[in-house]
Amino acid sequence: MKKHNFSAGPCILPKEVFKKASEAILDFDNSGLSLLEISHRSPAFVDVMEEARSLALELLDLKDKGYKALFLQGGASTQFLMTAYNLLENKAAYLNTGTWSDKAIKEAKLFGEVIEVASSKEKNFNYIPKSYTIPKDTDYFHCTSNNTIFGTQMKSFPNTDKPLVCDMSSDIFSRKLNFSNFDLIYAGAQKNMGPAGVTLVIIKEEILGKVTRKIPSMLDYAVHISKDSMFNTPPVYAVYVSLLTLKWIKENGGIAGMEENNNRKATLLYAEVDRNPLFKGFAEKEDRSPMNATFNLTNSGHKEAFDKLWKDAGVNGLNGHRSVGGYRASMYNALPIESVQVVVNCMKELEHKI
Amino acid sequence: MKKHNFSAGPCILPKEVFKKASEAILDFDNSGLSLLEISHRSPAFVDVMEEARSLALELLDLKDKGYKALFLQGGASTQFLMTAYNLLENKAAYLNTGTWSDKAIKEAKLFGEVIEVASSKEKNFNYIPKSYTIPKDTDYFHCTSNNTIFGTQMKSFPNTDKPLVCDMSSDIFSRKLNFSNFDLIYAGAQKNMGPAGVTLVIIKEEILGKVTRKIPSMLDYAVHISKDSMFNTPPVYAVYVSLLTLKWIKENGGIAGMEENNNRKATLLYAEVDRNPLFKGFAEKEDRSPMNATFNLTNSGHKEAFDKLWKDAGVNGLNGHRSVGGYRASMYNALPIESVQVVVNCMKELEHKI
Ligand SMILES: Cc1ncc(COP(=O)(O)O)c(C=O)c1O
Ligand SMILES: Cc1ncc(COP(=O)(O)O)c(C=O)c1O
Ligand SMILES: [Mg+2]
Ligand SMILES: [Mg+2]
Ligand SMILES: [Mg+2]
Ligand SMILES: [Mg+2]
Repeated sequence: MKKHNFSAGPCILPKEVFKKASEAILDFDNSGLSLLEISHRSPAFVDVMEEARSLALELLDLKDKGYKALFLQGGASTQFLMTAYNLLENKAAYLNTGTWSDKAIKEAKLFGEVIEVASSKEKNFNYIPKSYTIPKDTDYFHCTSNNTIFGTQMKSFPNTDKPLVCDMSSDIFSRKLNFSNFDLIYAGAQKNMGPAGVTLVIIKEEILGKVTRKIPSMLDYAVHISKDSMFNTPPVYAVYVSLLTLKWIKENGGIAGMEENNNRKATLLYAEVDRNPLFKGFAEKEDRSPMNATFNLTNSGHKEAFDKLWKDAGVNGLNGHRSVGGYRASMYNALPIESVQVVVNCMKELEHKI
Repeated sequence: MKKHNFSAGPCILPKEVFKKASEAILDFDNSGLSLLEISHRSPAFVDVMEEARSLALELLDLKDKGYKALFLQGGASTQFLMTAYNLLENKAAYLNTGTWSDKAIKEAKLFGEVIEVASSKEKNFNYIPKSYTIPKDTDYFHCTSNNTIFGTQMKSFPNTDKPLVCDMSSDIFSRKLNFSNFDLIYAGAQKNMGPAGVTLVIIKEEILGKVTRKIPSMLDYAVHISKDSMFNTPPVYAVYVSLLTLKWIKENGGIAGMEENNNRKATLLYAEVDRNPLFKGFAEKEDRSPMNATFNLTNSGHKEAFDKLWKDAGVNGLNGHRSVGGYRASMYNALPIESVQVVVNCMKELEHKI
């Protein structure tokens, strides 16, 4: 039985992508070779890399605006340290909206002073702090647009003249934003873009070159830019599957098309969470993430019954993260609304049974 | 037509591996889910990671000897800086046998003093320096076991009481060595182990914890060890395909089985290079690599004719690296001897034609 996959990441990708991704392993583009055995310097793969870099910028409406796209290894966790290595000379401002912000802060502290401008830790990160000021003497401001674990999302971003750095790992390509307000965006691929093993980094080039420390080549954005994201062997397959997904996004209405669908899915689920007396949401309503909906049973005694219902319905990955408990429905771009309806039906069925 | 793939890396993998690797994209282990969409924390993937880590140590005969295996992102190029970040407090000794050693040296210099104990640069790295001493006061000794670009291989390693660090990217799992003489071995997967996007690191734990600098989490071997190589999202697919390849190695006689085959292939090719008056080898005979055979035409006027012969025969990736010119036949574990015979036949055919 094909599952309804609500996994938080790695997660569902479009089925057309899986099909092409599987074929390329046996024969890439009628070359007589598997995609896994071709040189990353072959014209065929250089084309893949260039198209992926260009399409990422195009979808974000960042073409010809001074930005470069890179496909790097190391996950978003490596970006926690690379952003600081490349940008933090004296002091940086960080907004703490959850586990991932917290980890970014921890790594940045090795490179300079970190000002935590605000934190929602005292309420287990169930909301996004809104009133804070970014000190004038900071090198950049860092935030996490979508908090995968807690199910909150920043709906707006501070207006600042400092470089704006954002971890968009769990909501990139899911909603329209004025991306040119950002100076550095990074995102592990394994939510809306592709398989685990590659990270998209979008950089406004003018913010680089301002720190005095020497940066090891593999951690230096300028080095990767100068080599068109091919300084060393890139994660060929993950880049290719990302390209397939980016093309699918484009063919399906671009980011606007994704957003429309994502809003329909989120509305359907959150409406049931609110309506159904057996469930309550975790995050503050105004900060709810359409990507990751966190909710709980109002009476934990129903856990066994509910878990049986959704598991029997072929639902996968609905368990909440241990930091929150309860349930988390991750509804990334590729998740069909039919899968959300299946969960909603299980919630209704629980109500009828009890 | 299926190609004879002599690509230097990414490169040929066993065809059984491609088949299973393709199937897992559509349905992993009858789970109803693609391998690309399952959580890296799922029991199914945790098993893959653990089996891969354990099998890597088993094949190298390093089980229960104080070693840990990690599957990291970032390529061997990231290991150039990580080894120094984790091990270089004052001074380190490096043997320079080619481009990759040279790059490792460059990165290490950011972290401390580097003593180049010997170099074969003056002869464009066509041999392995053999008489050198490792200064007493160095933190470790670093070398490159196989020089992918120049086609040389270290046949023996210095006897030293310093930690022995080795880049085995292009010959790991290809020949028997006493691996317990090494303290840290690293290898980008994309030659003998799997697809691009994952790097195997084998560490003797006792060498860690000796430097005073603070190490960012993602660059800290101890952090990755403490999290069983799952500190952050690992490159799931690349790890899985590596596991398939490691199993194939085991089923085909382990490293001893690989070595026997590799020697047969290398003997076949080098014998023709030596016999055929139209060709000459690049590397000194005693240092020749069975993995990457570098050779040239004695008369460059025959280039067009020879290139046509091998291309028509379905051979891929025989062009030499720009630093050496001529030809390079990369004959990794998965390359069948039949493919080597095809190249040898082209060499003979050229001789008969002329
Ligand atoms: C918002 C966010 N940032 C960072 C990470 C860490 O990503 P990685 O595991 O690729 O290092 C995650 C992982 O889920 C995430 O959701
Ligand atoms: C011996 C050796 N070391 C290091 C590297 C660099 O590996 P990566 O591209 O994975 O960083 C290579 C790549 O071919 C290599 O052959
Ligand atoms: Mg700005
Ligand atoms: Mg309710
Ligand atoms: Mg030793
Ligand atoms: Mg000859």
